[in-house]
Amino acid sequence: MEPFRYSAAHALTQMRSGELSAEAYVASCLERIESRDRDIHAWAAIDPELALRQARLRDRDHRGGPLHGIPVGFKDVIDTVDLPTQYNSPIYQGHRPAWDAAIVALTKKAGGIVMGKTATTEFAYRHPGPACNPHNVRHTPGGSSSGSAAATADFMVPIALGTQTGGSTIRPASYCGVVGFKPSFNLINRAGLKFVAESLDHLGVLARAVEDVALFVHAVSGIAMPAFAQAPSQRPRIGFCRQPDWDQAERSTQEILEGAARTLALKGATLSELTLGPPFDAAREDHAVIIDFEAARALEFEYQQHRDKLSPPLLASIEAGWRYSRDQYDAAMTRAVGYRTLLASTLREYDFLLTPSAPGEAPEGLASTGNSMFNRLWTLFGVPCVTLPAATGPKGLPVGVQVVGPYGADTRTLYWADWVHRALA
Amino acid sequence: MEPFRYSAAHALTQMRSGELSAEAYVASCLERIESRDRDIHAWAAIDPELALRQARLRDRDHRGGPLHGIPVGFKDVIDTVDLPTQYNSPIYQGHRPAWDAAIVALTKKAGGIVMGKTATTEFAYRHPGPACNPHNVRHTPGGSSSGSAAATADFMVPIALGTQTGGSTIRPASYCGVVGFKPSFNLINRAGLKFVAESLDHLGVLARAVEDVALFVHAVSGIAMPAFAQAPSQRPRIGFCRQPDWDQAERSTQEILEGAARTLALKGATLSELTLGPPFDAAREDHAVIIDFEAARALEFEYQQHRDKLSPPLLASIEAGWRYSRDQYDAAMTRAVGYRTLLASTLREYDFLLTPSAPGEAPEGLASTGNSMFNRLWTLFGVPCVTLPAATGPKGLPVGVQVVGPYGADTRTLYWADWVHRALA
Repeated sequence: MEPFRYSAAHALTQMRSGELSAEAYVASCLERIESRDRDIHAWAAIDPELALRQARLRDRDHRGGPLHGIPVGFKDVIDTVDLPTQYNSPIYQGHRPAWDAAIVALTKKAGGIVMGKTATTEFAYRHPGPACNPHNVRHTPGGSSSGSAAATADFMVPIALGTQTGGSTIRPASYCGVVGFKPSFNLINRAGLKFVAESLDHLGVLARAVEDVALFVHAVSGIAMPAFAQAPSQRPRIGFCRQPDWDQAERSTQEILEGAARTLALKGATLSELTLGPPFDAAREDHAVIIDFEAARALEFEYQQHRDKLSPPLLASIEAGWRYSRDQYDAAMTRAVGYRTLLASTLREYDFLLTPSAPGEAPEGLASTGNSMFNRLWTLFGVPCVTLPAATGPKGLPVGVQVVGPYGADTRTLYWADWVHRALA
Repeated sequence: MEPFRYSAAHALTQMRSGELSAEAYVASCLERIESRDRDIHAWAAIDPELALRQARLRDRDHRGGPLHGIPVGFKDVIDTVDLPTQYNSPIYQGHRPAWDAAIVALTKKAGGIVMGKTATTEFAYRHPGPACNPHNVRHTPGGSSSGSAAATADFMVPIALGTQTGGSTIRPASYCGVVGFKPSFNLINRAGLKFVAESLDHLGVLARAVEDVALFVHAVSGIAMPAFAQAPSQRPRIGFCRQPDWDQAERSTQEILEGAARTLALKGATLSELTLGPPFDAAREDHAVIIDFEAARALEFEYQQHRDKLSPPLLASIEAGWRYSRDQYDAAMTRAVGYRTLLASTLREYDFLLTPSAPGEAPEGLASTGNSMFNRLWTLFGVPCVTLPAATGPKGLPVGVQVVGPYGADTRTLYWADWVHRALA
């Protein structure tokens, strides 16, 4: 097998046993990018010599951090000192930050290699970027972490960083058939991230295996590694949640979810239907208020000085943000705290929830990155979410299922996500 | 009276009636800076022509936002596109951000003028900057918003922005004899602020009158203006809080607080002693864990690539941050949520708390910016705090008293702060 196909975990084993050098691993990924990216457009900036130089340094340094020699892609809303950071906006063409974002520096500290910057929608908002879905380039890879999803799915890099403010990690991962993880709010330091909405912005992680996601998150945040090798000590209690919009999911996605639920029950899980009751009714609108209210303020500089360089959809979102009053925003934020408390008590009866990752397969065309309806609530609640590739839909594109855990239970949620991933394989 | 002595509210009235132009107001403040700043060192960067150019534009533009023609100083950890932003670190000597922070852009949107960048400690942490206390230049102005406190106290500018992660707005305002306001967590958008600890970092506002603080906060956040002209409709219920370290406050500060309490009772307030009970016992340590844990990660780039340019105290804080485990941090964060809930229910019985702003007068010398012991808890709790100059201490320096309100009640807390300020005048 060519090294670019290795998982990060496998590559680490090979490097530790001396059968693979970081340089050879990075070179293999670079060749993959070279041969494929003219079709996929997953990368916003890449400097092969810079990546190889880091790899050679790793090969000479035997301290061996937990990501020693692993190349990582960073969504282009995350600042890097060595590579341009352009937020997919003409305003920042050629922009070179004065620093690495915390997550970049923490990746380097753990021995990881900055492979390059992955394509994003404009400021991680709705207006699409150039990336295509590697399973069918006429379809969107989803957004806003488009390039990170496409690059990991297409074996260009084993791990890539995304962000999620609505559904920007889980949805593209589902559309591209990779594992996506939006951790608990506050798990990964955000210094050096270009904010859309600071109360909702999360850094997220995309990879082809739950173990690789866990390796990365463990390395940069200090949470424990899940005990993947251990069988569950109990029958998992799963809440099957068809909200918020089961009727708007494609029929095939509904069937895949129901099939997954049956399979997990056969593997020993206890399943029950979970419905978020009326206290959560305003949550969808609250998410909309918070994201647009905060984005209008966070992007006021760009709106003021570079309005002609903002896309019409972004202008519309910013203008929507200015139409909400402070009181509407404060009420939404107050309710958000209430949802989190209420959800924590609901989730005590479950190990995790099973719910759609997206309404269906990746839509055709690149004009829209799809709909985040199945992600926004969990983002607002700040709880850990993992999407796992579960099946192939009628158009031949991947469909994911989403595992949602209680706030702060990231290690446990990743453990169960891996269990689900194996059960559905 | 020279215009530089005007409050922002008075200057706005003068400008609206045509008796003062923005250019004349800014020119007067610039002359004050010119004549005084070689002794005070309140400014990290200033460009008189840029300030005057903005003023002339305001004079030609009659739309008249709520800060129309008001010059504002910005602490030099807040990004500005037109002026260098150096975080008082040699790493960023001459650094020019590609954007204005949200708060800068929002100030401009409201008609305000970017007067310049005010001196800060290194990255708004403990290592002091060059600013002196205008009441006695052999004493510290406090930190980390040193220049913002000194500049407003010395009539160089009517309003300046600070930040607070421990006690960095309230303490310097108290030491310099101005009004300082740390709003509820999340009141002012933080995009473009260099983070120390994202869970604790607040933007704060310094001015010589509560009304000016309120004018500014209203303009940039959309909260309502307090009804300053209305007499209280009820006798204020005040909780007198001697925590966390009454014994470590200077005797004169204790007396000033007790005197203020007596005065407010005479003016009609109902006073009772409030003690945060044992559930709050770990809060001080929790604040220490959160600030250092997060700062170590936020500043990992600087530590990794520019270690020789960081001050020994900052290095020590970063290294302390790496000694805490993820579990310790998570436990502190979980308790912080608990404190906020518990405090909200305690505060239901009061309109506001009265507590020291600082342990005493500004310490002699510039080697230390003083102690934030009377600020850290309220910062951790995310509640609105206002310091009001109340008296002069035995060394002839100002002593403030602090008003603390319930989370989210910023308008009401500013109303009561103004009432206290007048009562003690």
